[in-house]
Amino acid sequence: MTQNPPFRTIEWVGDIDGFVRLIDQTLLPTTVQYRDCRTVEEVWEAIRSLRVRGAPAIGVAAAMGVVVGMQKNVPLGGFASRLQEVCDYLRTSRPTAVNLFWALERMQAHLQPHPEGVKPERLRKLLLEESLRIETEDRAMCRAIGLAGKDLIGEGQGVLTHCNAGGLATADYGTALAVMFAAAESGKRFHVFADETRPLLQGARLTAWELHERGIDVTLICDNMAAQVMKEGRVQLVIVGADRIAANGDTANKIGTYGVALLARAHGIPFYVAAPSSTFDLSLSSGDQIPIENRDGREITHAFGRQTAPEGVKVYNPAFDVTPAELIAGIITEKGIIRPVTNESIRSKWGESGA
Amino acid sequence: MTQNPPFRTIEWVGDIDGFVRLIDQTLLPTTVQYRDCRTVEEVWEAIRSLRVRGAPAIGVAAAMGVVVGMQKNVPLGGFASRLQEVCDYLRTSRPTAVNLFWALERMQAHLQPHPEGVKPERLRKLLLEESLRIETEDRAMCRAIGLAGKDLIGEGQGVLTHCNAGGLATADYGTALAVMFAAAESGKRFHVFADETRPLLQGARLTAWELHERGIDVTLICDNMAAQVMKEGRVQLVIVGADRIAANGDTANKIGTYGVALLARAHGIPFYVAAPSSTFDLSLSSGDQIPIENRDGREITHAFGRQTAPEGVKVYNPAFDVTPAELIAGIITEKGIIRPVTNESIRSKWGESGA
Repeated sequence: MTQNPPFRTIEWVGDIDGFVRLIDQTLLPTTVQYRDCRTVEEVWEAIRSLRVRGAPAIGVAAAMGVVVGMQKNVPLGGFASRLQEVCDYLRTSRPTAVNLFWALERMQAHLQPHPEGVKPERLRKLLLEESLRIETEDRAMCRAIGLAGKDLIGEGQGVLTHCNAGGLATADYGTALAVMFAAAESGKRFHVFADETRPLLQGARLTAWELHERGIDVTLICDNMAAQVMKEGRVQLVIVGADRIAANGDTANKIGTYGVALLARAHGIPFYVAAPSSTFDLSLSSGDQIPIENRDGREITHAFGRQTAPEGVKVYNPAFDVTPAELIAGIITEKGIIRPVTNESIRSKWGESGA
Repeated sequence: MTQNPPFRTIEWVGDIDGFVRLIDQTLLPTTVQYRDCRTVEEVWEAIRSLRVRGAPAIGVAAAMGVVVGMQKNVPLGGFASRLQEVCDYLRTSRPTAVNLFWALERMQAHLQPHPEGVKPERLRKLLLEESLRIETEDRAMCRAIGLAGKDLIGEGQGVLTHCNAGGLATADYGTALAVMFAAAESGKRFHVFADETRPLLQGARLTAWELHERGIDVTLICDNMAAQVMKEGRVQLVIVGADRIAANGDTANKIGTYGVALLARAHGIPFYVAAPSSTFDLSLSSGDQIPIENRDGREITHAFGRQTAPEGVKVYNPAFDVTPAELIAGIITEKGIIRPVTNESIRSKWGESGA
């Protein structure tokens, strides 16, 4: 299990004039194919189309997207306005994951203030370095999350997860799955149930694949089987990722997460969220303020290359839901576990200055 | 809404030497195609492969399957043993829906005792008449269920249902959907949320189609969106069908039903089951004794002509779950609503002799 992952989620290839290479997650698990993004439009499309997805990975992709977007011959006088334009454009790719906004703000802040008269080439180098730093830090944060949470998994237990919060959702290791990888490394045996996660089946296509490839014992179920698996006593712990966490601990994550949290509560099973500090948005007092992306109904009616619902039927397709803090036993972060989940415990973990 | 249904779920075509015609539900909603079953093996396959499904419709199909199975030149001396053979064979098609066993027992009981020396042709005629009676009674029971339950739906309310308990699951009208049809006939306006119901998408393919065709306002959602739709205050009532109901009211129904019941409880939404008397199995004291069919994992990993999970991954695919009586506000039957759901209320509804 300690071997390297069998894939690279996202990486920068080449020097300052290089490009973003990412594994096209829409083709998994049947096809492992990498996609090179050489323009900011291609990066935007990759985020929008979920070729790269998962809050932390979106953050890395956006940061690298900025570097790509600044490669055109930008005159010194136009550098700041072009940077603003590129960042504003990337912000429109997906609304819910806060890591997107966090990464873009960090890229802009890195050049503010910069001395007048610095050459564009130097500024571009600074941007590339910062994007690589975000990637490196993400990998380290994920690793730390894994180590912080691994003791939550008991020998022989069953762990249920929803969607994909694995290496494919981050620079490496993942968040929820990092906990499983660290537990497995420490010699623990346990079993994972992966919700397939309709409509886009990230659980079936990505989580089951990733765990299977890394040698972790995993069983795939449909989302609507989670309650039954819990009732049968097969699950002792739930761990999921997060797309945005408000100041009070309310957590936006893939649609279905809130339902899983309610089912876990009904069966007395602890429900944990795993996320790095970049997923916290302390500017929002509660989850009610988190914007929820609604996606095209055809993801539900035509998802598998075949029409599976009547022509013209109404569809509701929210991509995320918000799990209230009261259903969350703890949030596993790179700085340890926040438990219980309250305004106070979150504030004390990240300090008054915010995450 | 009072127009005839745009399809015929199952019917007997011709005289005593006729055959079973059923709409092939595996091809819906994109293709409306009828399938003629002229051998008992074809009927068995149609039940097993879910070309015909839904507990009451399975009962009708099995009864008609007996007639088809007795069409071969059966000598008088061999009639009883052939009948036993045909019924035993049909019993192996699906394990959970009790209506299958109920219908076959009824067909056998109809010829017990029969006078010695009665000609096979006369016995076959008796079997055909009994199968048509089961079909006619089912239609009438479903209609009565609709009328018994229609006042549960309030003006402007949202009603959530899971899987398909519609006209496609019965001879006509359905069980849960019969309630909606009757409410619509009485002039009520309301809105239905149909869970798509993985893995085989009966909600998307059948319920959404059937409601859409009959002019009822329906929105399709993924199973994992039910909690969110409830949280948003869009659902005031849940009605589902049943495959088998134990003496204490524990109810086996399509996988995911138990989870929906828990989510309804968490949101203070009443959860109702709609089912005819033939769905009750008073020989079982509780739901623990109901056999649960496990189906092929490929229904999950390769469902729509495309592989959506990694090769070789473990899959758990229970086709049903059991909702405990304590989560059920009432059971809507052709004789009125059983409420509260207890051993006593069920016994008093069906009498000491059983359902």
